[in-house]
Amino acid sequence: MSKVIWLGSTQLAPVPAVLAGTGNGKDFKNNLITIAWAGIVCSTPPMISISVRPERYSYEALVKLREFTVNIPLASQAATVDWCGVVSGADHDKFAEKNLTAVQGSKVAAPLVMECPLNLECKVREIVKLGSHDMFIAEIVAVQVSEEFIDSSGRLDLERCGGVLAYAHGHYFNLGKCIGHFGFSVRKKAGSVIRK
Amino acid sequence: MSKVIWLGSTQLAPVPAVLAGTGNGKDFKNNLITIAWAGIVCSTPPMISISVRPERYSYEALVKLREFTVNIPLASQAATVDWCGVVSGADHDKFAEKNLTAVQGSKVAAPLVMECPLNLECKVREIVKLGSHDMFIAEIVAVQVSEEFIDSSGRLDLERCGGVLAYAHGHYFNLGKCIGHFGFSVRKKAGSVIRK
Repeated sequence: MSKVIWLGSTQLAPVPAVLAGTGNGKDFKNNLITIAWAGIVCSTPPMISISVRPERYSYEALVKLREFTVNIPLASQAATVDWCGVVSGADHDKFAEKNLTAVQGSKVAAPLVMECPLNLECKVREIVKLGSHDMFIAEIVAVQVSEEFIDSSGRLDLERCGGVLAYAHGHYFNLGKCIGHFGFSVRKKAGSVIRK
Repeated sequence: MSKVIWLGSTQLAPVPAVLAGTGNGKDFKNNLITIAWAGIVCSTPPMISISVRPERYSYEALVKLREFTVNIPLASQAATVDWCGVVSGADHDKFAEKNLTAVQGSKVAAPLVMECPLNLECKVREIVKLGSHDMFIAEIVAVQVSEEFIDSSGRLDLERCGGVLAYAHGHYFNLGKCIGHFGFSVRKKAGSVIRK
């Protein structure tokens, strides 16, 4: 169990690999930016953060409009996610070139990617300058789910469709087998005696 | 491609499922808190955020000491991670009860979990109150890696050992197959003609 000590670096894993939708289809064109520096930061109200370099094409729209969407892709959409993270919206219409359908959110003007199974509509509450990146802390004001991913009990079921895309140490992954539900380590086995 | 609109909720996926190490082994005992509300927030300097409810046992140590570790578990450690997220450090010595080895960081007094392959040493730079959770924005000042996860070229190779634990919509997962490296969608195929 011996350890090697390295300099500090961004080795958290896995992280999400999502398409943030920016713009409003008018003065700021609809664009997509691939984001791995994203995380949930609060449960009530539901809040997310995404971090973006100020030199990115989407940055100005984020600062001016203070709205974005987070579009969670399937593992099968990895190539599209990767491409949207490599090219710039200054030179490309990412929706058109990847045959993605942009639809305005129900509570934000920013575009949803209809082809992604899960879409979060986000309103920026705070911008924190950190260094290479600015962090946009936003409330998730609505969620949209593709109907085919809702099971018969009305719940989200992404697993039956191959699951969502993950990112770890520079590589894309799908999710493998489900190990257990939160709390599985203390759940009583069927037929076990309950101790009081 | 029709969508159902839900209320805003914390549906980002996947997210990490990590053990944050808190305390200093003296006035604040070494403890572990399972965190899924974590993300990378800046590349330079390397920064992470973790979000913690003020009512959690670890909260006071985080605020007073302004240091923590992030211990990234393997999928095979899911039951330990789950248990550490269900019970409180007020009632349990989590290191002792799960046979985990606590070692002080190289740059922080907070305990590393030696049995986790990857450990991030973190110093809090900013605390942001958001609602149910406070977000601790921290610089990753050092990384420790278990020697057996470093390959012959000196690089981290978590994949050959089953990979890290992921969390999505209340369930734990391992990572499945690797789909590609960042940039794979635009990489030239071997033998292809380079267009100039």
